[in-house]
Amino acid sequence: MSIRFKLLATDGAARRGWLQTAHGVIQTPVFMPVGTQATVKGLTPDQLRAAGAQIVLGNTYHLALRPGADVIAELGGLHRFMGWDGPILTDSGGFQIYSLAPTRKIDDHAALFRSHIDGKLVELTPERAVAIQENLGSDIAMCLDECPPYGTAPDYLRVAVERTIRWAERCRAAHKRSDQALFAIVQGGTDLELRSRCARELMALDFPGYALGGFSVGETETQMHAALAPTAALLPTDRPRYLMGVGTPRDLLLGIRAGIDMFDCVLPTRNGRNGSAFTKEGEVRLRNACHKRDPRPLESDCPCYVCRHFSRAYLHHLFLAKEMLGPTLLSLHNVAFYCRLMAEARQAIEERRFDDFTAVRLVRWGQSP
Amino acid sequence: MSIRFKLLATDGAARRGWLQTAHGVIQTPVFMPVGTQATVKGLTPDQLRAAGAQIVLGNTYHLALRPGADVIAELGGLHRFMGWDGPILTDSGGFQIYSLAPTRKIDDHAALFRSHIDGKLVELTPERAVAIQENLGSDIAMCLDECPPYGTAPDYLRVAVERTIRWAERCRAAHKRSDQALFAIVQGGTDLELRSRCARELMALDFPGYALGGFSVGETETQMHAALAPTAALLPTDRPRYLMGVGTPRDLLLGIRAGIDMFDCVLPTRNGRNGSAFTKEGEVRLRNACHKRDPRPLESDCPCYVCRHFSRAYLHHLFLAKEMLGPTLLSLHNVAFYCRLMAEARQAIEERRFDDFTAVRLVRWGQSP
Repeated sequence: MSIRFKLLATDGAARRGWLQTAHGVIQTPVFMPVGTQATVKGLTPDQLRAAGAQIVLGNTYHLALRPGADVIAELGGLHRFMGWDGPILTDSGGFQIYSLAPTRKIDDHAALFRSHIDGKLVELTPERAVAIQENLGSDIAMCLDECPPYGTAPDYLRVAVERTIRWAERCRAAHKRSDQALFAIVQGGTDLELRSRCARELMALDFPGYALGGFSVGETETQMHAALAPTAALLPTDRPRYLMGVGTPRDLLLGIRAGIDMFDCVLPTRNGRNGSAFTKEGEVRLRNACHKRDPRPLESDCPCYVCRHFSRAYLHHLFLAKEMLGPTLLSLHNVAFYCRLMAEARQAIEERRFDDFTAVRLVRWGQSP
Repeated sequence: MSIRFKLLATDGAARRGWLQTAHGVIQTPVFMPVGTQATVKGLTPDQLRAAGAQIVLGNTYHLALRPGADVIAELGGLHRFMGWDGPILTDSGGFQIYSLAPTRKIDDHAALFRSHIDGKLVELTPERAVAIQENLGSDIAMCLDECPPYGTAPDYLRVAVERTIRWAERCRAAHKRSDQALFAIVQGGTDLELRSRCARELMALDFPGYALGGFSVGETETQMHAALAPTAALLPTDRPRYLMGVGTPRDLLLGIRAGIDMFDCVLPTRNGRNGSAFTKEGEVRLRNACHKRDPRPLESDCPCYVCRHFSRAYLHHLFLAKEMLGPTLLSLHNVAFYCRLMAEARQAIEERRFDDFTAVRLVRWGQSP
């Protein structure tokens, strides 16, 4: 078996799990920092590890275009290429085709799109998406899916779901690596009937893990969270569940409460680069003049490298002076914040107090539970 | 005494020394990475330390303008502010007034210039330069000097030297911190007569260390190196000698051969940010297509984090993908390269084979010894 998953504890729908991969064990719920181009922006693998990252995500779309999956395979695979020896999950490229590629044509055979780098026409079939990810050598690969934005006409949404199911079947048939798990992606937008049908069909194909795709694609936060719990409940309890591309700290807690085990999002690194730090008291914008003489760390009890060594005043200075160390340090803290939030969530589930934990956090962030 | 300096060995004019400061001991010859705005661009203090940095340089001109020496003092001094607990040297701002400030007026009283940040008029007197550096709390401070570019008329060069001497006298009188050493700066361009007069007058004031300023300001490399040895030879043997703002790996070896103990330069970090790595075989431009599939590290025997974990192919990819980790990693390697070159130079001096060591290196870099 490519992965092993054990449910260690539950608290309501929230789950505390243990996920073994070819490159090590992951404690769930887990947040996966995004390393789109074979690097979590600004951070070394050592810094990532120290920040508490257990697994990182790589983007098939970007890596296939540059430097090319063949180049990475020739250099020993993605782990060796990027110097990260822990688990890696690669997405399938389905989402990026919708969000990045300038022109595209999708039919049952393949997705055809223009590279956002050099404008070349690229064809991505389910088989090719699997082959690329086998070349990359990730621990968890994703089936190619079709991920239409929120507001897509119901008729087309149905077509996209059918195609996602057929493509999952083809991905499963094409997949060969025994040290890599292939997850299926449940689509269907906010249409629960469609989600349910998609989940059922994918479960009949018996994947080792399931993802929820097509969230955070334009729907409101309320719509997303209303759909999460019922969709997660459709999935088998003995397989890991991954909510793709989500989200804020609040989204993660509500996602865990809905029964999700895995998350990825660019927010901690993107907001970090833009001078915004996640803290227990909410987001702190380091460019604000109020930080100029503030000797306090971002968080007094945060064990990360940044909070142990630097004041808000120093971080403020780095951003005002446009020093690249500013984005690096805030990305580092934000990843550590996300990973620590997950560690605390895991403990709260074990101690069967996850709802309280969530409520206290949301109130502190000025959000309604 | 603010510092202690011991000469441990010599080999020709090359010197192997030991320099104790308030924040630790420095083995010389030493290269000091430049942390202009209270950060060596892109590197954390931990990374700097791991790269072999013993002491870093801060720029008085930049720090006085932003965030202000008072702010840094209030936050516990420059060491604490930037999270570097090793020795720090601060320059006096003299060089930056010439190289950065848009308009300036210099008379015997002060240098008057416009801030390159907000255009405000700023007056820097010798007393103020000392006060700022005392506020910053560096281990080694520099006297305010006048540093005219190469090609300055002989008459004005004489005026600048006279002023530099008078200002050194005023700096010395103003300087109070017992845990900080104040170094004087010998000016005089490539005029050895003027250099000699400047050195003599400054030595009469008995400083704990002496710098050579006004090199690498437009003269040719040959002119600089021709002037170095005779100028260094003017200085007392029992005080450290610092060649300001120089230079390439070759410049450092020739500088050591001329009797210099300390160097600083932005080259390793600036060239690193631009995709150029220093290696035993010369500079390697990582953007070049020849690196696309190259599995080798930058240097096979380099113990730095970058060479232990990443291929040239990966670094090439990072620069092509415009990932900020590329500049960070190359800066890290380049600082490690400079520090290791100094460590090897120290050993070569101890073993009285420094000339051979230098010749072998220069030949490998395709340069004449």
